[in-house]
Parts: sequence; structure tokens; C-alpha cells
Amino acid sequence: MTEKLTALKQRLQEISDLTDALGLLSWDQSTYMPPGAAAVRGRQQATLGRLVQEKQIDPEIGRLLDDLRPFEESLPFDDDDASLIRVARRRYEKAIKVPPALLAEFYAHSAQSYQAWAQGRPANDFAAVRPYLEKTVDISRRIADCFPGYEHIADPLIDFFDDGMTVGRLLVLFADLRKQLVPLVESIADQPAPRTDFLHRHYPEADQLAFGLDIARQFGYDTERGRLDLTLHPFMTSFSPYDVRITTRVKEDDVSEALFSTLHEAGHAIYEQGVDLAYDGTPLAGGTSSGVHESQSRLWENQVGRSLSFWRHYYPRLQETFPDALRDVALHDFHRAINVVRPSLIRTEADEITYNLHIIIRFDLELALLEGRLAVKDLPEAWHARYESDLGVHAPDDRDGVMQDVHWFSGVVGGAFQGYTLGNLLAAAFLARARDAHPEIDGEMAEGSFTTLHGWLRDNVYRHGSKYTPPELTERVLGGPLTIDPYVGYLRHKYGGLYDLTT
Amino acid sequence: MTEKLTALKQRLQEISDLTDALGLLSWDQSTYMPPGAAAVRGRQQATLGRLVQEKQIDPEIGRLLDDLRPFEESLPFDDDDASLIRVARRRYEKAIKVPPALLAEFYAHSAQSYQAWAQGRPANDFAAVRPYLEKTVDISRRIADCFPGYEHIADPLIDFFDDGMTVGRLLVLFADLRKQLVPLVESIADQPAPRTDFLHRHYPEADQLAFGLDIARQFGYDTERGRLDLTLHPFMTSFSPYDVRITTRVKEDDVSEALFSTLHEAGHAIYEQGVDLAYDGTPLAGGTSSGVHESQSRLWENQVGRSLSFWRHYYPRLQETFPDALRDVALHDFHRAINVVRPSLIRTEADEITYNLHIIIRFDLELALLEGRLAVKDLPEAWHARYESDLGVHAPDDRDGVMQDVHWFSGVVGGAFQGYTLGNLLAAAFLARARDAHPEIDGEMAEGSFTTLHGWLRDNVYRHGSKYTPPELTERVLGGPLTIDPYVGYLRHKYGGLYDLTT
Repeated sequence: MTEKLTALKQRLQEISDLTDALGLLSWDQSTYMPPGAAAVRGRQQATLGRLVQEKQIDPEIGRLLDDLRPFEESLPFDDDDASLIRVARRRYEKAIKVPPALLAEFYAHSAQSYQAWAQGRPANDFAAVRPYLEKTVDISRRIADCFPGYEHIADPLIDFFDDGMTVGRLLVLFADLRKQLVPLVESIADQPAPRTDFLHRHYPEADQLAFGLDIARQFGYDTERGRLDLTLHPFMTSFSPYDVRITTRVKEDDVSEALFSTLHEAGHAIYEQGVDLAYDGTPLAGGTSSGVHESQSRLWENQVGRSLSFWRHYYPRLQETFPDALRDVALHDFHRAINVVRPSLIRTEADEITYNLHIIIRFDLELALLEGRLAVKDLPEAWHARYESDLGVHAPDDRDGVMQDVHWFSGVVGGAFQGYTLGNLLAAAFLARARDAHPEIDGEMAEGSFTTLHGWLRDNVYRHGSKYTPPELTERVLGGPLTIDPYVGYLRHKYGGLYDLTT
Repeated sequence: MTEKLTALKQRLQEISDLTDALGLLSWDQSTYMPPGAAAVRGRQQATLGRLVQEKQIDPEIGRLLDDLRPFEESLPFDDDDASLIRVARRRYEKAIKVPPALLAEFYAHSAQSYQAWAQGRPANDFAAVRPYLEKTVDISRRIADCFPGYEHIADPLIDFFDDGMTVGRLLVLFADLRKQLVPLVESIADQPAPRTDFLHRHYPEADQLAFGLDIARQFGYDTERGRLDLTLHPFMTSFSPYDVRITTRVKEDDVSEALFSTLHEAGHAIYEQGVDLAYDGTPLAGGTSSGVHESQSRLWENQVGRSLSFWRHYYPRLQETFPDALRDVALHDFHRAINVVRPSLIRTEADEITYNLHIIIRFDLELALLEGRLAVKDLPEAWHARYESDLGVHAPDDRDGVMQDVHWFSGVVGGAFQGYTLGNLLAAAFLARARDAHPEIDGEMAEGSFTTLHGWLRDNVYRHGSKYTPPELTERVLGGPLTIDPYVGYLRHKYGGLYDLTT
């Protein structure tokens, strides 16, 4: 049996190594690649992607997994080898269900659709992208249909990103959340807006980069196994837990964009770096889902990085770094400025609270498209209607309306959005649990130390990597399923300190 | 037949794409990779290397090549498709002759041997590396024996680097060359050494980098399809002609190291970028041999970049860039300083003339090891004896003696050195031919323009990539086989202007 396990591990490691090489091709594409290489890079990525896929669905993996079933069943559920076999089987069974021809069609269409969007969005030309989006909806439905037995057609698509999560569960969570958020946003919007002008003074690039990276290191980001580079659209990428890189972009007239994007991506990276190193090269390495990943980016960016405790320590340092810009700005004014709540059009620029409403709108529209209740041609109108009803804003065009996000134009419709809000909910739930176990966390934070919090997250969440599905992990860490209560409690407590929420 | 050709091209393109990904893993390893990733990166490289090798020896390629033989024979020799089939067949037939087990042994041993050298060299511990070198000689002989019918055991090894070149030819070329060089060096060494102290004043890093890259661009290096980064041991690497990168290292107390290493690597890169873009993804892309590649690095670095014509234009610019360091230094003094000829211990720091003697010593010792005339245990002594007789210098230890170069400790013994001197010979021969065709080249150079020279090299050498073997290319460009005459003529002319060579 050891021989079969070794053979399985060798195949999985080969897939992992190839996937890492593919990751490096993408990282390089977004950081240092010379512009003339764009077309060739696409071809290199397609070749490696095809090889990865061939190896993922190699029937020999299926045979090894079958042969290893008695061995797996002889081990406890939590055993690393049992978990490796279990997770590898789940991925293999998912992978073989989608016919290679459909997958090839999906990749080819995604690339074309992305091109159409990249040209059509600046031109505000929804008509140009519409046929691509229609085909994307069609392909998404056909991919979902490879997994018969679903309750909702979006369930198999969601499962790719947030294993074990369903439309049924999400609709309940999101409806409850929306009921809390809409009045909260309204009650804040009625009050005078805090000053934010000083956030847009002059902040030199090199100092911004050094300041953000210094905090990321304090959080627990290990630059012996990572690095920070500049890019256009910030991201985190991991080529094994030994090499987890983050990127950011800097505007010299904005002190918050690079800082919070760095802390966000560092949160993702700290999760990846915290996975048990023994899982390297196996399907257990890497975060377990989109939602759990987003919980860590959001925890470190928002629930820590925009907290008053945190800035009690770091604001004097920020003032020292940018004395001309911040000499006359008090801690509380700065803290209010980086936590302004204001209904707006653009998801990625939205505040911590309204962000969820952007997500819920997209999630609901995805379901309507997949169910066939909404035609792509009617999507712009439905978009505008929901933005007016939920956020009270109206995009002047489709560029910042239905064409705002890349997601629907470079992949499937369905599955890619819910993780952001699940992340907010999970972050608050994890943080509440960590505080229960270690009430000293906030005191430490106010002294610039995050060791206890990072240690708790590493021991309870990070080190497991993909060993547990999100529901398994939630059960294990929280002692039950995810609820919205910790998050709503967190928002009420935090924003109660910033605004009068008694109305 | 078109179908078979398409099938062959697809397979070759897959190999090319994987090789390019492997190249990016190495580039990243030497530039931006965080230190903690070292071990994992080695594994990723081994995985991709194994995949490339599997694909290179896939019998289906052999079948396609067999099927395509009548098609190939129906086409002119110079036809691109005929050349592609011819070159692919030559590579395939070479690749399948080495048993995978021997190749695996070679790779594993090379990695271990490199490790032993990296530790043993600083400790001056030849005893520690000796068993590794003994095994390297053994493996090298076994690899050579995979190609029966050779005249000299080093011939098959040389053929990997310089296709078509043999020990027989090289011994004649090198003996003739040595006969010219030794007295030339002696006659220069008798004369007063020029001043070089000003080369070691303070030269800020950023200015050095910008100055070198600016010249590389003027030579013809296209930074839309390339870039310059910092590294420990400078190199050029190419991931298709659309992405050809160079690296350098900078010492702020040395104006020449970064500059000439940049021009050297840029020469390699200009060659790669100049290959017909239609060859991308095929075995015709990339330079044809070690010697022809080195001819371009050496042509641009030395025969152009250390010439008086060149500095007539660039020296005033260098003085403007580093006014404090060079204000009091005249053009002719600077030109003499960067062309000092002086027998020394270290190959990579040797001047243009004595460099060849370092190469010839290594080449002769390689032959002796492979023939069994010299045992590894006696190599240090033989090394010191040759350095005394040929260069009149004696290394105080083995660190800068037999352990000086990485080559023997990270690959085969045999094949890796002759290309450097072949490059010098070829560079002079090509340049002489270009000057015959375009006598205006030197005048242009003195005005900072290299368009005519670059165009001639592109049309006659670069664009062909690997279409022609070195002997085929030499015949085509020079109208006959390579001789030492243009190089010796070049040296006599250049150094006759710097020293009194009438003695």
C-alpha cells in the first residue's frame, strides 16, 4: 500500500510543480514581463494548463485512489494520509466529470470573452460583450450539468470555489445579512460625512511600500518565503508554502489604496504560508476555499488593519513616515477617514459594509441568469434597478454597471462572488473565537503585536490547508455552522464607536 | 503530409513552451525568488526537466520524422520546413541515444557535485570535490560512449555545444592560436602597465545600470522584448524571441564590470532577438551553438565595446554621467585602462587576449582526463604546471586553481569551454566580413550608430537561428571554414595601437 501511496503522491507532486510553474508564468506576466511577450506568454500558459489538466484526469490516478480506499478507511479521518487521499479523490472526481472538449471550449471562450471585455468596457459597449456573456452563461450551465443531482444549477459552480456551500444556505445567510446592512447603511448615510481630504495629500511611493510591507511582516508575513512587487491589479500568488508573493499598486496622492491592498494580499499570503509545510506538493497545500481565503485577507485588512487598536500603535509611525501630510491630523480623524461608509458604484472601492451589498446584488443576478429568469440582454436594466433599490445609486453607464467586474467576462457566471461576503462573515466569526480564547489580543494589537492572534489562526485555520472543507473547518473551529451574528456584532460595535447608530 | 508536419510542430512547440517555463523558473531563481524557496524550486525544475526530456524522446516524434522524410527530401535544403525537420531529427537522434537512466544519473550527480563544489571551493578543499569530479569524468565518458564511431572521445561531448566541431579541428586551431598569443602577451607584459586606478572610483549603481542598458539598446537590444535585472552571476536567458532577458551585477567601485557584463549579455540577447520570429516555438529558434553565441557576446562586448571608435562617441557621455570620477581622465587613458593585457589567475576577469590561454589550458586538461592520460588526483598539479608555462602565474591554492570554474562541477567534463575561444575567432571573422561589405561601419560606430553592423549580422547570422550548423553557417557567411587569421589580425591591429608590438 505504501508503494501505491508513493505513486499517488508522485503524480500529485508533478501536478503541483507544473501548477506552480504556471503560477510563476502568471506572476511574471503581471510584474516584470516585457510587453512584447504577451502573445507568446498566453501560448505558454495554455500549453502548461493543458498538461496540468491531462495529468489531473489521468485514469491511473483513479486506479490508485480506488486501490487506496481500504487503506484510507483504515485510518482516522484526521490522519494526513487519509486526508490527502480523500481530498485528492474529491478533486479527481470533480475533474473527470467535465469533458475535456467542454473544458477546452471554456478556456478558449474565456480568453476571447476577456479580450472583448477589455476592449468593450472602456468603450461602454455592452452590445459588443453581450454575445460573449450569453455564451458564458450557456457554458456555465453546461458545466453545472456535468454534476447531475444538484438542488440549484449554481450549486456545482459554487462548489468549485466554496466546497460544500449551496444556494439554499447562501440565500438565507445573504437575506439575513441584507436585512441588517441596508438600515445600517441608511442610518450612517444620514450623518455628516467625515473628512477624508488628507488621505489625498502627497505620499511618496517608496515610503508607502516600505510602510505596508513592514506591517505585513508584523502580522506574520514571512519575506524569507515571499516578496512584494508592483502590479496593475494587486493579487497574491503561491508557488508552494515556501514562496508566497504579494503585489500592490501605489498612487502618490492616496495613502490608503496601496496600504490596504498590501494588507489584504498579505492576509491571503499569511494563510498560504501558514499551511503545514509537510503538505507541500500535495492537494492539502493551499487554502481550502474562496470564502476562507477571503476571511483572512479581510480579517487582516479590515478587522485588524482598520481597527482603532491597530492604529493606536501605527498612527504615530505613519505620521513619522509622512510628517508633512499628517502632522495636523489626529488619530481619530484618520481612523474615521479610513472607515467612511458611503454607498457607491464600484465594488472594489466600496467600504467594509456596503461591499456586501455589491456582492449580494451580483450573486442574485447570477442566479437569475443561470435559472433563465433573466436574459443577458435585460441584465443592464436589472443591474441598475438593484443598485437603486439596495444602494440608492445609479451608474451613468454600463462600464461601471454590468461590465464593472472581470469575473463574468473571464470565466463562469456563478461561484466567483459569494466568497467575498462569506469571507467577511468568517473573519468576524474566527476573530470572535480567537478573542474568546485570548482576550489579550486587542491589548497586544494596540502595542503592534499580533503574535497571539496569528498563532491562534495558524493553529486553528492555516496549518490545515485544504485538509478540511469549509463546513468541516467551520464546525471544527466554531463548533457549529457559520452565522451572520459575529459579523453583525462586529459591525455594530465598530461603527457604533464611529457613528450614532441609535436612530 | 501537412497533417504530419502540423503534428510534429505541435509537439515541438509543446517542448519549447515547457522549456521556456523551465527557463523562467531559473531566471526567477537568480533574480527575485525569495531565499526560502530554494529547495522547492529545485524540485519544480527537476519535474519540468523530466517532462521536457520525456517529450523530447517520445517515439511518436521519431515516427513523424520518418514519415516526413520524403517530404523533407522534396524541398530545398534552405527551406524552413525542410530545415525544421532536419534540425528536429538531429536533436531527436541525439536525445534518444542517451538512456534515460544515464541521463537521470547525470542530473542527480550534477546537482550533488555542484553542492559539493559550492561548499568545497570556499574551503579550498579539493579532496572533498575530487570523488565527484572523478564520477563526472566517468559519466562524461559513458555519455560519449552512447555515440559510437567518434574519432576522439570528447567529440560527441563537444558536439552538444558546438555541432560539427571536433577535437581534431580544435587542436589545430588552438595550437596555431597559442603560437601567436604567447609571444604577443609576453611582448605586452614587458611594457609599462597603463593606469587603471580611476576605474575604481565611485560610480553610483543606478547610473551604471542606465548607462549600460542605453548602449545595449543602441546596439539593437529591444527592451520591448527584454529587460535588465540584477543577479549574482550575470547571464542571458530567452523564453522565445519575444522575451530575451539579461542580467548584470554592479560594484560601485568598478565602472567596467557591470558595463561590460551588460554588453556581453546584450550581445547574446541581440542574437536571440534577431532570429526569424517565424521560428518561435520550433528547434530553429535560438542560437545555433555555443561558439556562435559567444561570438556575438564577444563581438559586442570587446570588438565593438572596447574599441576606440566606440569610445570616441561614448566616452564624453560616460564623463557626463560620472563627472567626479572621470573629469580628469582622457579618452586615450580610459581606452588603455579597459584594454589592459595582463596574465592573471581568473578566467572570468582575464583580458581579451589571455582569456584564450585560460580556455586552451582547460580544453587540453579535459582531453587528458577523458583520454585517461591524466587522473583527477593529478589535476591540480597539471593545472599549476600549465598556468606557469602558458601564463607565468601560479595560483596560491586550488580554489582559484582547478576549482575555479563551475563547469566541471555541474555538468560534463568536455565540451563547455572551447566555445569561448571559438567565439573570439568567429567574432573577428564576422566583423571583418561585415567591414568588407560595409566600410562605413567604423565611422558610424564613432557616431554612436550600430545600425549597419546590426543589420548585417541580423541578415547573415541572427535570423537563421539554428537553421544551419556552425560549419554550415561559417561556410555560408565566410565562404570557407573558420581560421584564426581575422582574429589575430584584429588583435595585432588593436593592440598595435595601444602598445609597441614591434619587438
